[in-house]
Amino acid sequence: MKKPFAITLALATLATLSGIALARQNAAPAEPIQPIAPAKVTQPALVELGKKLYFDPRLSRSGAISCNSCHNLATGGTDNLRSSIGDRWQQGPINSPTVLNARFNVAQFWDGRAPDLKAQAGGPIANPGEMASTHELAIGVLRAIPGYAPEFKAAFGDAAIDIDRVTTAIAAFEDTLVTPDSRFDLWLKGDRKALNADELAGYALFKDTGCVSCHNGPAVGGTSFQKLGVAEPFRTDNPAIGRAGVTGKESDRNVFKVPTLRNVELTYPYFHDGSVNSLEEAVRVMGRVQLGRQIGDDDARKIAAFLRTLTGRQPSIVLPALPPSVASTPAPQPF
Amino acid sequence: MKKPFAITLALATLATLSGIALARQNAAPAEPIQPIAPAKVTQPALVELGKKLYFDPRLSRSGAISCNSCHNLATGGTDNLRSSIGDRWQQGPINSPTVLNARFNVAQFWDGRAPDLKAQAGGPIANPGEMASTHELAIGVLRAIPGYAPEFKAAFGDAAIDIDRVTTAIAAFEDTLVTPDSRFDLWLKGDRKALNADELAGYALFKDTGCVSCHNGPAVGGTSFQKLGVAEPFRTDNPAIGRAGVTGKESDRNVFKVPTLRNVELTYPYFHDGSVNSLEEAVRVMGRVQLGRQIGDDDARKIAAFLRTLTGRQPSIVLPALPPSVASTPAPQPF
Repeated sequence: MKKPFAITLALATLATLSGIALARQNAAPAEPIQPIAPAKVTQPALVELGKKLYFDPRLSRSGAISCNSCHNLATGGTDNLRSSIGDRWQQGPINSPTVLNARFNVAQFWDGRAPDLKAQAGGPIANPGEMASTHELAIGVLRAIPGYAPEFKAAFGDAAIDIDRVTTAIAAFEDTLVTPDSRFDLWLKGDRKALNADELAGYALFKDTGCVSCHNGPAVGGTSFQKLGVAEPFRTDNPAIGRAGVTGKESDRNVFKVPTLRNVELTYPYFHDGSVNSLEEAVRVMGRVQLGRQIGDDDARKIAAFLRTLTGRQPSIVLPALPPSVASTPAPQPF
Repeated sequence: MKKPFAITLALATLATLSGIALARQNAAPAEPIQPIAPAKVTQPALVELGKKLYFDPRLSRSGAISCNSCHNLATGGTDNLRSSIGDRWQQGPINSPTVLNARFNVAQFWDGRAPDLKAQAGGPIANPGEMASTHELAIGVLRAIPGYAPEFKAAFGDAAIDIDRVTTAIAAFEDTLVTPDSRFDLWLKGDRKALNADELAGYALFKDTGCVSCHNGPAVGGTSFQKLGVAEPFRTDNPAIGRAGVTGKESDRNVFKVPTLRNVELTYPYFHDGSVNSLEEAVRVMGRVQLGRQIGDDDARKIAAFLRTLTGRQPSIVLPALPPSVASTPAPQPF
């Protein structure tokens, strides 16, 4: 199952992740999953601005949808819906991935069409089915909110506001959204009592069954693109074609970024189509579809028990007080 | 303009507000507005539970709308829309009032149909145009979220979950949402430099013009019901009839609760129909419609400058980490 390649890739990816001090000295040397380090905030003004923008619904045409609407930091960085609700209650085409630990992803979106968080951040703002604004309109709104000028000045040295700065700031905030100190991380760091027998058995199964060949690295995923439906087709009514939409290659049809399994207890429903609510069922489906293995109920239960130990310490987010609009700020258009 | 009566009412209301230690010893004795005291949390487990419920979108049918959707604590406890977006993007019938300092209101909703915060909290959950759930469904969802049981036990002594407890907890959280330490409060407490000359002139005009006859007390409003359109009709296409819908009395047509002016800089657009974006324009409209006075541009500017000194310290809200649903939790129905 490409295990050596995937691990090599994961380690190569790891090596390129700057600013992350993995406590590797304490990790069991052979483990294919590494602990997550707490965020290091080196540019607090930039991160604070990014947080405000992340929570600001005025980046949407309606004035009602913010980044946090679909990537809700109260609910694991997702909205826990099969697919999200966009402007005018449009049904989104695909399940919203979690923003937590998204910094570890090899690329952003299920199809990897954005190389990084900054490139991702501009997408939903201007997507007619999501926030349904335009970059021009959104920037016009922000420029007409007097309280943002000093924030941009503090973050960038002057008060100019453009989409490059907005997405830079949002990405800088998102870069801090990591979830260290999961029970599994404590175990990796040497606390042998952090996991119980079922959870340890689940981890052994996770490795032995082959799950770890794709779900590895600090985020337990996010390091590679893989075809969904290797052993048998993944049945769905979701029309997403995956990476083929980016590369134009027929061989990339149904190839998706491997999602992180960090906080997977919180990021239901599962898969790009959000079709499965049960973590145990998701494990069984993956075994069958990706690995050609029928995972029994007890094994699925143990693997799911292990996966629930990947729930980390959620970022402590003090809700920002957003600078108010004034009479000359373009009004939202909700109806 | 009923000034003596209104002040008497405000003081009577004040006298009944328990748990608020107003720093009255420092206030100028004759001022019709009193400083707001910081919240005193006496039941932290109850308040914490209430915060979780306040932010939990699973109280709605869609799984996407929480109390915070329309009473956003990042934006002055409102959504800054003329009227709110309900389930399936339905257009709400009336502007969402701020939850900040709502504890000071004589009753809740524009028409006062709920006597207190607890009675209010159950309304939107079951309103088909708002969160569109039912109390039965919402309670069924909460009971099927394992992580809530210990929270209810910590708050109430046992883990039973019912709508009475849910609304009690939400109200207990909302009871803490006060905004002390506005510049005007600092001035009231003796800091003579807290306001500039224009703001002080605006306060004098606010009193002399008659605004204060209704907008008084610690919340600068919220203490009485008043007819909208005393001096001339308030023109609107909003069909709300006000308190008449509660009392059945024709004399209560167009009678609304006087809104708080605390944080009015943040709670635009103004009036029950959300028809006015500019605070200066709102001041002029009120002068004409309620007081029969043409307030000139310069006076309106000064009154608005005073009103902006009523922006207080916003509650510091750490976003809660909501307990996850499990496979047996009733799934949201967004589409």
